Amino acid sequence: MIEDKNPQRTSIAQLGEFGLIEHLTKNFEINQTSTIKGIGDDAAVLNFADKKVVVSTDILVEGVHFDLAYMPLKHLGYKAVVVNVSDICAMNAKATQILVSIAVSNRFPLEALEELFDGISLAANEYKIDVIGGDTTSSQKGMIISITVLGEADENEIVYRNGAGQTDLLVVTGDIGAAYMGLQVLEREKQVFQVNPNSQPDLDAYTYLIERQLKPEARKDIRTLLHALEIQPTAMIDISDGLSSEIMHICKQSKVGCNLYEDKLPLDPQFMNVCEEFNLDATTVAINGGEDYELLFTIKMEDFEKIKGNPNFTIIGHMTQESEGIHLVTRANTRIPLKARGWNALSEE
Amino acid sequence: MIEDKNPQRTSIAQLGEFGLIEHLTKNFEINQTSTIKGIGDDAAVLNFADKKVVVSTDILVEGVHFDLAYMPLKHLGYKAVVVNVSDICAMNAKATQILVSIAVSNRFPLEALEELFDGISLAANEYKIDVIGGDTTSSQKGMIISITVLGEADENEIVYRNGAGQTDLLVVTGDIGAAYMGLQVLEREKQVFQVNPNSQPDLDAYTYLIERQLKPEARKDIRTLLHALEIQPTAMIDISDGLSSEIMHICKQSKVGCNLYEDKLPLDPQFMNVCEEFNLDATTVAINGGEDYELLFTIKMEDFEKIKGNPNFTIIGHMTQESEGIHLVTRANTRIPLKARGWNALSEE
Repeated sequence: MIEDKNPQRTSIAQLGEFGLIEHLTKNFEINQTSTIKGIGDDAAVLNFADKKVVVSTDILVEGVHFDLAYMPLKHLGYKAVVVNVSDICAMNAKATQILVSIAVSNRFPLEALEELFDGISLAANEYKIDVIGGDTTSSQKGMIISITVLGEADENEIVYRNGAGQTDLLVVTGDIGAAYMGLQVLEREKQVFQVNPNSQPDLDAYTYLIERQLKPEARKDIRTLLHALEIQPTAMIDISDGLSSEIMHICKQSKVGCNLYEDKLPLDPQFMNVCEEFNLDATTVAINGGEDYELLFTIKMEDFEKIKGNPNFTIIGHMTQESEGIHLVTRANTRIPLKARGWNALSEE
Repeated sequence: MIEDKNPQRTSIAQLGEFGLIEHLTKNFEINQTSTIKGIGDDAAVLNFADKKVVVSTDILVEGVHFDLAYMPLKHLGYKAVVVNVSDICAMNAKATQILVSIAVSNRFPLEALEELFDGISLAANEYKIDVIGGDTTSSQKGMIISITVLGEADENEIVYRNGAGQTDLLVVTGDIGAAYMGLQVLEREKQVFQVNPNSQPDLDAYTYLIERQLKPEARKDIRTLLHALEIQPTAMIDISDGLSSEIMHICKQSKVGCNLYEDKLPLDPQFMNVCEEFNLDATTVAINGGEDYELLFTIKMEDFEKIKGNPNFTIIGHMTQESEGIHLVTRANTRIPLKARGWNALSEE
């Protein structure tokens, strides 16, 4: 492949703020019937008719939430949307619109922002959400992405964190831990690259893990699946900070305890292999590694038959009385108090 | 006054992300009937019933949008909310909720964030809006504040930028230019302070200008006033980047031209005095200086009688056919093409 040694670099200052927003969003289409007016006025205008509105926001900071050394800008744009959509899925609602604000230092040319917005556009199409507003400005250092997402649902569909009952079953979608191990693989490759920039990494053994880290998906399908199964979860949350941290949120807000079973954790074979390669305990990674964007929810015991054997769901535990506490039940059948060691953007490492 | 030489400094890392959000938002009350669920779940839940929803977002970056050398954190928090509420006022809608995301470097202790949130809380009370969500994280450098604001209105009340007719009158609320001159005064004092930290500034002659810069207000009263006068504006925008820039937005989107009359511009006496002191042309500053957060709107000619003599409003011009262009008509009755020299966060200075 012949590399372009002089990729085009257009200064964002050349376009100015209005020109930039117009340029970056010109290909965005409006698909949601609830969007009356998108980008181009002081505010967007929406009509949710008789639906309730759910809204959430996330801010992503370069060097804290992402590292552009191994995160391509297009993937970053995609993931920034997914992370937000996932919060709407966790309410059992349908994501409908996003607003995207970007602050970037002048080290980023227009072409970099185009890459980023390509990823945002790709995710908007995939999740059928409208980009209805945003803001673009310069930063003193690095890139900051702030996204607000709106969604809709009927009032009786919405699932909060605080509805879990003392005998409910704890269910997780997909598998967990892979995104965290994907990050470990990428971090290792970055170190290798820094020592020897000519090394050609062979990442075939890690494709699933890397994809989980670089191109996660929000589980928008679960709402439809649960609806078809006639299951209304009692509590729900998405796994962004790590399973144990999310379980503790549900327990705290629902005033219940929990037994989580180690032998029930849904782990991908590639994940287990790479944990071994890295000399890491798979269970510890699975319950503390974040960024899976799977959904964790509780259902009434009587819904067990509806969900049993469904490949989309794994029952990983059950809720208890609050006084019993929150425990991991190991394969050796010992009960260990669960601690939230999830990822914390403010911790000093 | 005895200064505390050792003000308390609590590291934000000590609290962690969840603790921090809980701590900073624990005093926030829910006042809007449309807020079903605020902070504390994956997303907030809102019920706008038969109202339309308006939503806007703004990102403020230290060193780009504000300078903490003369902007106290409490004022910054207040202003960050006002800037967003102003966008909702510019749709002729009522602001109802905000989401607040903050990224800060570790140079800010908890006490600094408390100051900031005190200002946010003050503005939330003043504008009767609920703080329903947000995100708090660390940054590599400086402080970044990203706020999304939601509001509501009946569909027929909402005013866009694109509805101005060819013979409509152009109206502005309050007076303009003062916020920009307030910034000039503060910048000058900063320079003086850097040369001589013991100098005691006498700012009595500048209080109005400084207040317009440090504690602007959004014109939430205008919606009520216009309703009482039975006036429905044909187009509306808030003055954040400067009058000329905003006029051009309305003209472009409404496909009309405009004559703006220099002798009609509403200028405060203090503003005019200080322009003279700074050797600046008052008209140039008034039409290009931003951050006034007044409202600029167009009304049908037949509404002239309803607005005439009302101290809240000044008719500063009229719209024309698009082909006639956009002009400033000077006191000497010459027509000068208007250019948008408004503030641009992306420009290289």
